[in-house]
Amino acid sequence: MTAPDYGASFAVWRGGAAEPWRHYTHHAFVQGLGDGTLPRAAFLTYLVQDYVFLVHFARAWSLAVVKSETLDEMRVCAGTVDALVNHEMALHVKTCAAEGIDEATLFGATEATANLAYTRFVLDAGLQGDFLDMMAALAPCVMGYGEIGARLANGDTADTPYALWIETYAGAEYQGLCRDVGAMIDRAVARRGGSLQGSPRADALQARFTRATELEVGFWQMGLDG
Amino acid sequence: MTAPDYGASFAVWRGGAAEPWRHYTHHAFVQGLGDGTLPRAAFLTYLVQDYVFLVHFARAWSLAVVKSETLDEMRVCAGTVDALVNHEMALHVKTCAAEGIDEATLFGATEATANLAYTRFVLDAGLQGDFLDMMAALAPCVMGYGEIGARLANGDTADTPYALWIETYAGAEYQGLCRDVGAMIDRAVARRGGSLQGSPRADALQARFTRATELEVGFWQMGLDG
Amino acid sequence: MTAPDYGASFAVWRGGAAEPWRHYTHHAFVQGLGDGTLPRAAFLTYLVQDYVFLVHFARAWSLAVVKSETLDEMRVCAGTVDALVNHEMALHVKTCAAEGIDEATLFGATEATANLAYTRFVLDAGLQGDFLDMMAALAPCVMGYGEIGARLANGDTADTPYALWIETYAGAEYQGLCRDVGAMIDRAVARRGGSLQGSPRADALQARFTRATELEVGFWQMGLDG
Amino acid sequence: MTAPDYGASFAVWRGGAAEPWRHYTHHAFVQGLGDGTLPRAAFLTYLVQDYVFLVHFARAWSLAVVKSETLDEMRVCAGTVDALVNHEMALHVKTCAAEGIDEATLFGATEATANLAYTRFVLDAGLQGDFLDMMAALAPCVMGYGEIGARLANGDTADTPYALWIETYAGAEYQGLCRDVGAMIDRAVARRGGSLQGSPRADALQARFTRATELEVGFWQMGLDG
Repeated sequence: MTAPDYGASFAVWRGGAAEPWRHYTHHAFVQGLGDGTLPRAAFLTYLVQDYVFLVHFARAWSLAVVKSETLDEMRVCAGTVDALVNHEMALHVKTCAAEGIDEATLFGATEATANLAYTRFVLDAGLQGDFLDMMAALAPCVMGYGEIGARLANGDTADTPYALWIETYAGAEYQGLCRDVGAMIDRAVARRGGSLQGSPRADALQARFTRATELEVGFWQMGLDG
Repeated sequence: MTAPDYGASFAVWRGGAAEPWRHYTHHAFVQGLGDGTLPRAAFLTYLVQDYVFLVHFARAWSLAVVKSETLDEMRVCAGTVDALVNHEMALHVKTCAAEGIDEATLFGATEATANLAYTRFVLDAGLQGDFLDMMAALAPCVMGYGEIGARLANGDTADTPYALWIETYAGAEYQGLCRDVGAMIDRAVARRGGSLQGSPRADALQARFTRATELEVGFWQMGLDG
Repeated sequence: MTAPDYGASFAVWRGGAAEPWRHYTHHAFVQGLGDGTLPRAAFLTYLVQDYVFLVHFARAWSLAVVKSETLDEMRVCAGTVDALVNHEMALHVKTCAAEGIDEATLFGATEATANLAYTRFVLDAGLQGDFLDMMAALAPCVMGYGEIGARLANGDTADTPYALWIETYAGAEYQGLCRDVGAMIDRAVARRGGSLQGSPRADALQARFTRATELEVGFWQMGLDG
Repeated sequence: MTAPDYGASFAVWRGGAAEPWRHYTHHAFVQGLGDGTLPRAAFLTYLVQDYVFLVHFARAWSLAVVKSETLDEMRVCAGTVDALVNHEMALHVKTCAAEGIDEATLFGATEATANLAYTRFVLDAGLQGDFLDMMAALAPCVMGYGEIGARLANGDTADTPYALWIETYAGAEYQGLCRDVGAMIDRAVARRGGSLQGSPRADALQARFTRATELEVGFWQMGLDG
């Protein structure tokens, strides 16, 4: 199976971070989700941390609205905030509720350092740079989950208790979000100069994407270490 | 008719800016909307500027999401961004389209200085201060329009061609937004210390509300001057 | 006399805003500084406003430190903050003290809207864009004052009581600052892609420079209107 | 020996984080600096990371200038940026140069996650909150180094090769900076409401201070792990 197509810019950045991208999308945590060997405790640790992650990730996408320079950019980013706050977070709330963890507990959970490091890195990309600097830092999370979901759904998921997680990210709605964000990034790149290779600016964007990917690896590892 | 009740914090701030609040909510532009004497050209100038205003106002409410410290604050602010981008701006687009002005023209319109001054003042309140500093600067616009709409709708609007404008802000949806924002501000004040009077912090918040109200006066005047 | 050379990027931006640049650098307020016909009251109004301007301008240069991506950018911007807070503001304090206006009065003065509009526009350029977006918005103030000072000092200043103002901006220290900032901007442009013409990104930067220049015209006019 | 007095607010925050504060100020890395048992390789790892830390720490103090609401706050924060960029970083450059590591290498060094986590946490405190939120997050670094330096200098440093490091933070200049920052924080607290105990606002500030202290523990550990 080839990876889903989320646009030309994402393809360049993904190719420029081949090694960490593989570590991220094929992490032992991910494999355990797919074959069902991931311990329940590790999944719950992850789920609580991921809820806190989504709070700050929604703050980051809101900062992207602040940094938008076109109506198109505003709408895609505001729509993503809505998807995060009103849909993706609801999945966590529902799953955690079934385990006896309520939303106030989720919101007040202590952030692991590996969690905090990633979201604050993204927020600072927005404070320091422009809209594209944010997109380069946000893309690994959005598209990585899309790619992982699609790959796992394509395999044998008969034995995994994590099918709902897989379906969420493999589903049409989330895959559509990945393609929309990817297409918007391509327009944003075109508008701001176009080339994503062979310039210091291109190198700086690649560095943000690559570092964000490495921080995602740390996030899975934190979940696995429980 | 008494003014609508948008919460205790707003009432304190409104009372502390009595003179500019009256100039803002009873400006000649407003009176002209109510009795229909406002020249069409002035209304269109205003409408185009107000569209650009809403772009930056939506950026400001998105910054408020970034600055939120509770899920409640995040949800109200994200909901306001959605209301601005997907509903209030649509009114402008529709009204302007009827006059032969398309949305690309609106988005690209040159901002009047009186327009720019207000939105950038609000955005800087967010950069310099905390969530409450933003609320104090955002409230005059949100609640002032609610109060103006309610008052005008309560009068004789038989002769005005601006009934749709009045209904938009007097309507249940917009009035509900004002009450929701006001109640959320009351909770945000309680959470951060409580007193809005008799301290340097209270004075600083009042100063932001008052200045924002004065900048709203300038906005109406800009519309009237065409 | 030809204008001083403050670097290639500034020359492009200045050329792209020829009309507003002329209005700014040859404003009646400026001419009155040079020939001494500017009323003292107008000068004092300007001086008090300019003090408040410098407070927010120092905040803006500090935001440029936050947005810096090289040590060179950090050092030039941090040095400019120091020059503003510890030198340029001291000139205002000293001159105003001689007129019986103390520094607390200056710091607490009510900002004119024309004043507020410019500094908050610059700060928002930093929030929305990257380091170059800030530089395009900051350059008109820094370099415009250098160009005005140099031109006026080159003329007949025998009769003007504003010789100290002229000398401050025509002097070696301030002219050196303009050249240093200009050279740093050239390096920042080269690092981020290079071309300042013929792309949407170049147009966006030019638009920031041009608008900032127009806001400077409004600042002089505010001073003149007293 | 009692800890140096850096003001009343700091004393409250330090007392509210007693356990992590002890882990931070008495970390094995610190003890190794004092008795000379710290391996040279660990010290160099730390020094390179600390240089990158100071780059982002200077960005954070610059953001504090942006967030200042009084001239006093602006001056102390701008002075700290100057101290960081022009003095403290010079110590690192000089020490590293003696080991054959030049400044470009330092600036381009890959940030450890533990390093990145702390500075981006501080920057986000500024983006999300107000001036005090930043101070609560910045204080552990500034004052902790002052306290460590003073304690180690008070002991037997005859055998440690790290005497220059100890003297730098125990010296009059750095101790004066700690007292100046502490006194300014006390004024900033008084100005914004005064109480640092028994309110949700007070809890939020304490939480930022405590978390920042824990992130400092992680920084020493990263150095030790090399």
